Amino acid sequence: MPISETVNTQVILSDRPVGIPQPGHFEIVEADIPEPKDGEFLVRNEFLSVDPAMRGWTNAAANYSEPVAIGSVMRAITAGKVIASKNHEFAVGDPVVGTLGWQEYAVTDGSNLRFRVPDLPGQDVPLSTFLGVLGSNGITAYFGLLRLGEPKEGDTVVVSTAAGAVGSAVGQIAKLKGCRTVGLTGSDEKVDVCVNEFGYDAAINYRTADLDAALRDACPDGVDVYFDSTSGAISDAVYQQFAIGARSVVCGTASIAVWDPLPTGPRIERTLLVKRARIQGLFIFDFQAEWPVAQADLCQWFLDGRLNYKEDMLEGIGTAPGSIQRLYNGENQGKMLIRI
Amino acid sequence: MPISETVNTQVILSDRPVGIPQPGHFEIVEADIPEPKDGEFLVRNEFLSVDPAMRGWTNAAANYSEPVAIGSVMRAITAGKVIASKNHEFAVGDPVVGTLGWQEYAVTDGSNLRFRVPDLPGQDVPLSTFLGVLGSNGITAYFGLLRLGEPKEGDTVVVSTAAGAVGSAVGQIAKLKGCRTVGLTGSDEKVDVCVNEFGYDAAINYRTADLDAALRDACPDGVDVYFDSTSGAISDAVYQQFAIGARSVVCGTASIAVWDPLPTGPRIERTLLVKRARIQGLFIFDFQAEWPVAQADLCQWFLDGRLNYKEDMLEGIGTAPGSIQRLYNGENQGKMLIRI
Repeated sequence: MPISETVNTQVILSDRPVGIPQPGHFEIVEADIPEPKDGEFLVRNEFLSVDPAMRGWTNAAANYSEPVAIGSVMRAITAGKVIASKNHEFAVGDPVVGTLGWQEYAVTDGSNLRFRVPDLPGQDVPLSTFLGVLGSNGITAYFGLLRLGEPKEGDTVVVSTAAGAVGSAVGQIAKLKGCRTVGLTGSDEKVDVCVNEFGYDAAINYRTADLDAALRDACPDGVDVYFDSTSGAISDAVYQQFAIGARSVVCGTASIAVWDPLPTGPRIERTLLVKRARIQGLFIFDFQAEWPVAQADLCQWFLDGRLNYKEDMLEGIGTAPGSIQRLYNGENQGKMLIRI
Repeated sequence: MPISETVNTQVILSDRPVGIPQPGHFEIVEADIPEPKDGEFLVRNEFLSVDPAMRGWTNAAANYSEPVAIGSVMRAITAGKVIASKNHEFAVGDPVVGTLGWQEYAVTDGSNLRFRVPDLPGQDVPLSTFLGVLGSNGITAYFGLLRLGEPKEGDTVVVSTAAGAVGSAVGQIAKLKGCRTVGLTGSDEKVDVCVNEFGYDAAINYRTADLDAALRDACPDGVDVYFDSTSGAISDAVYQQFAIGARSVVCGTASIAVWDPLPTGPRIERTLLVKRARIQGLFIFDFQAEWPVAQADLCQWFLDGRLNYKEDMLEGIGTAPGSIQRLYNGENQGKMLIRI
């Protein structure tokens, strides 16, 4: 579906999911294209992001942010360009990334922008990468790994959802820092991607492997850093391989569909005690003041060819309602995006 | 039983417990008093320590240190004085604290000493306190709270086993640092001790209270620091009250009798993620180089009258075999010790 020149096609949250949102929880509607008022500008979205966090945004339970209200445009990060402006800081043509929602057009005063896309003179960097490896995913990987994970040269770093948008960046940044990297992923095809495109020293298909044995083989000195986007049985297996002083970074909980009531699992206190290990939750807005530094590093690594990425590009805003389910099914390879 | 002048009464681990060691796992035997060789000295123990960690030392499962071998003197921290010396660094009369075991006499070259009791001129400080509030317990509280817990002024600090040897020091150090302190303990009598002797702002009898409701009442702004010596249901209740950025310090797991196989409990990853919280295991030997600094602070607070302590003194080495069970039953009030 091409971008309409007369109406604003929007994806509305029409029903409250429990767990992973399905296509039926959304509705596609048409609205007028909004007009910017003084201080505002109009953005035409070119790419819509599909992120694991969107499950949390649709669910009723307490989370980082308020749940998306029923009848509202689905919250989403987008990349687009300014097409009309009454704000002297933003000119027509400026590329921006913001929480502008699953819709073709959005008016903003800039307060819900995540960042202005940095100018990389003479470089042909696709705008979509600023939703992925050079955007929130890369920034998440950067602070989660480097600040919470505190990897040291020679450490063994295990990454769950290793071929995904965040995980693939974690694995590559860990290699840049001199670590041994072990990726956990959900298919043999993704195992190949992990090793051949993202440079993991080893990768394990957690669906088919004897995970305990495979982790022991891949991590003979134990796990120093675990970048966890799954929780659940995968994490329980990793915890058992913790080295002394291990650091675990909780970035997401993709393997657990419903958290209310709390699911049970093996208690971890004694493992943490005996291994002097820690588990810590990541929130990248805690580092927001430093995002530009991270983005500069990421862009440099990217331009140096040391930071690969993959995109799974869905075509047309009509693919949005089913996209979160596809993401949680692991059907994607790399960052899932919707091209409008 | 008075200290024998002719034989060395020892408590031997005679059977391998699963879980909490009972009197039948030990045997009292008599050996010759050992003679120090060149470089060694002979210590007469005056006080034997009873610590929660001793459960782990007797069990077969992997732990900080190797399990105590069947037929060996039970590993224990003791305080005593040098009574014969062929080591020029230690003179007769020197008070020392070391891992010298549940026995009347021990020969050492100094390698298994924990520390030399500091000289506090003009002060009458009981030797036994160096097994408790001025020894390992105080040092554990100090590094666990201050380094891993990182309390800030105005933080709410929750302490499990709040009236115990470590917990009571944690609560008082937290007060010294300007925190609000909430103690969890197992009897109404200990609730009184927490509030009246250790200065907790609130204390909860976890055996009789509706713990969730009591914690909400006592921690209206949530829990910033949790000093955890229990694990189990008590900890699960505290986790649910975590404030943003909470730090949990795992010091012990007293409420869980057996860890093999791992008991289950509510998963904590999502709580850690949403609250940007962390849980970390404490090992005081990670800070061993700084023990003298901690001990100097503890002694100063003690001499200033700002660090109270309680001792639960058992009389005679014959009480040793039943003492660990008593400790885990919560029968003690304060630091459990055996006076020889």
